[in-house]
Amino acid sequence: MSLTISIDAMGGDHGTKVTIPASLDCLKNNPDLTLILVGDEAVLKPLLAQELVAYSGRLSIQHASQCVEMHESPAKVLKNKKDSSMRVAINLVRDGVADACVSAGNTGALMATARFVLKMIPGIDRPAIISTLPSIHGHTHVLDLGANVDCTAEHLFQFAVMGNELVKAVEGIDNPRVGLLNIGEEDMKGNEQVKSAAKLLGLSTLNYIGYVEGDSLNAGSVQVDLIVADGFVGNVALKSIEGAAKMIGFALKEAFSKNYLTKLAGLLAYPVLKSFKKRIDPRLYNGASFLGLRGLVIKSHGGADVLAFKTAIQLAEVEVKQDVIRKISEQVEKTLALRNNA
Amino acid sequence: MSLTISIDAMGGDHGTKVTIPASLDCLKNNPDLTLILVGDEAVLKPLLAQELVAYSGRLSIQHASQCVEMHESPAKVLKNKKDSSMRVAINLVRDGVADACVSAGNTGALMATARFVLKMIPGIDRPAIISTLPSIHGHTHVLDLGANVDCTAEHLFQFAVMGNELVKAVEGIDNPRVGLLNIGEEDMKGNEQVKSAAKLLGLSTLNYIGYVEGDSLNAGSVQVDLIVADGFVGNVALKSIEGAAKMIGFALKEAFSKNYLTKLAGLLAYPVLKSFKKRIDPRLYNGASFLGLRGLVIKSHGGADVLAFKTAIQLAEVEVKQDVIRKISEQVEKTLALRNNA
Repeated sequence: MSLTISIDAMGGDHGTKVTIPASLDCLKNNPDLTLILVGDEAVLKPLLAQELVAYSGRLSIQHASQCVEMHESPAKVLKNKKDSSMRVAINLVRDGVADACVSAGNTGALMATARFVLKMIPGIDRPAIISTLPSIHGHTHVLDLGANVDCTAEHLFQFAVMGNELVKAVEGIDNPRVGLLNIGEEDMKGNEQVKSAAKLLGLSTLNYIGYVEGDSLNAGSVQVDLIVADGFVGNVALKSIEGAAKMIGFALKEAFSKNYLTKLAGLLAYPVLKSFKKRIDPRLYNGASFLGLRGLVIKSHGGADVLAFKTAIQLAEVEVKQDVIRKISEQVEKTLALRNNA
Repeated sequence: MSLTISIDAMGGDHGTKVTIPASLDCLKNNPDLTLILVGDEAVLKPLLAQELVAYSGRLSIQHASQCVEMHESPAKVLKNKKDSSMRVAINLVRDGVADACVSAGNTGALMATARFVLKMIPGIDRPAIISTLPSIHGHTHVLDLGANVDCTAEHLFQFAVMGNELVKAVEGIDNPRVGLLNIGEEDMKGNEQVKSAAKLLGLSTLNYIGYVEGDSLNAGSVQVDLIVADGFVGNVALKSIEGAAKMIGFALKEAFSKNYLTKLAGLLAYPVLKSFKKRIDPRLYNGASFLGLRGLVIKSHGGADVLAFKTAIQLAEVEVKQDVIRKISEQVEKTLALRNNA
């Protein structure tokens, strides 16, 4: 199945230094893939002179005269950056030229632009950001990771419905185990939104397993496939995990760097430490999907390197192949119909 | 300076198996310390026959006929467990017999009982739970870790005032750097409570450094001494970090257990891995303080082992010596006076 993805070539902390090699790697790996690199033609053309020939028909440049900076406000970007590489890449999805768009640009601006250009799936109030974390059971999908603060129970429920379809499609499982992030597993725990969302989920057709605590994101006592949270809470949890991993990596490095003996031990343990690092490498989990929009947008970490950005493109490939947006839209429609008939 | 601490000897997952050896270790280490072990005399007396003689005058048993179970509801405990080891240990603080109380019992019940028995410091609306996390800069104090959901800006501000005094006293620093947990560092980020709390903190005499993200708990780009959060968010962050550490430990163990060669590498790296584990050993960070009450209560992790429970008792010793409750009460009074005069 052939598929086309538009790449915001200028986005992210490293711009074309990362987006171009990652794109070329993906083209090499997947003969069904077509990429449209969006950005300043004067910059991109010389960098891709040979490849435009080598991948003729599968690689093209779409000119965009502007760039979105990493700290620009979404409102300003919407107003003043109508010809940004980010916006033009999303326009290609709207126009049906591309099946998905990948950007490492500023999250707020990307979300605002995607929402403005692509519009929401009818029945969904707010878009949400979903991504994957490694866990001792494999991995866990989590949403919302920061698109929304102050979510109502209905928002949390909508996130669960959308996330459930994504997990089914991407993981190829029938009944993902869905948990609701809370500060305890007992019924009485939590705030009003979470308690009401638990009721909605309990009455739904989802495989809702109940409340889960923060440790379930990486290391719950049972496998959870999808964890639903308010965007404030989900974002803090994600960043806390990033910080913990960074600190532990720092302490490990420190311990092995203490003196000659520890350095020697580190040398001997190097292959093991390398395979360990690979198991939890955040670059292999890069790529967050925006759910709730009428088109597929994948956000890469701003600081992504080539491997990480490649992972984000590959995530887009999988979601396009699995027709995630259509499945979500259909499920949302079904859920609404069920509710209206109830 | 002599000090007396009451120990809920029956609390926690392991009860006396942990509380007694940890208590005896602390008595051995600090000749100024007196401990009152609270629990069923018929159980405790035979276990302490020799030690009651050896530590005569510094170790005693206070009988309590009931135990609080780990999953009992706070309301039921308050009503039906008036002679529990937990309640009696807190009563000793109220009556001035003990300077602080340490319990590994059920958090909700401990908080409800402590609040009921000890009452709040005038001017503080809600008690909060504060604890310490290891960070690449040393460590970070964080509150609230789960006593409250749905905090207002005023609550967050009160947490900051109390936490600031605790950090000053315990760390011996003049102007702790105070951060507010948020989902971004820019002014526009966050929910209404956090934005309003930022204004209150900005106008205060605290050394408020602004918003910090979840990664600052363990690995911020700058040192933050105190991080203030809503209890829901703080609890999820704490548990997420626990889960991340567990998962990373699991992956590390897995990597070193793969085959004979990796096991040999593990053996050679053993001293290094041991010193690394010690650096981030959660047992050395065990012990959370309840702030806002007119008496000192330290909550140990329910699953604490001897070393961890000892750490919690030692935390109580430090907070008693530093007269934390008096300092907090005075600061709250000053803050209120300032505001009333403004």
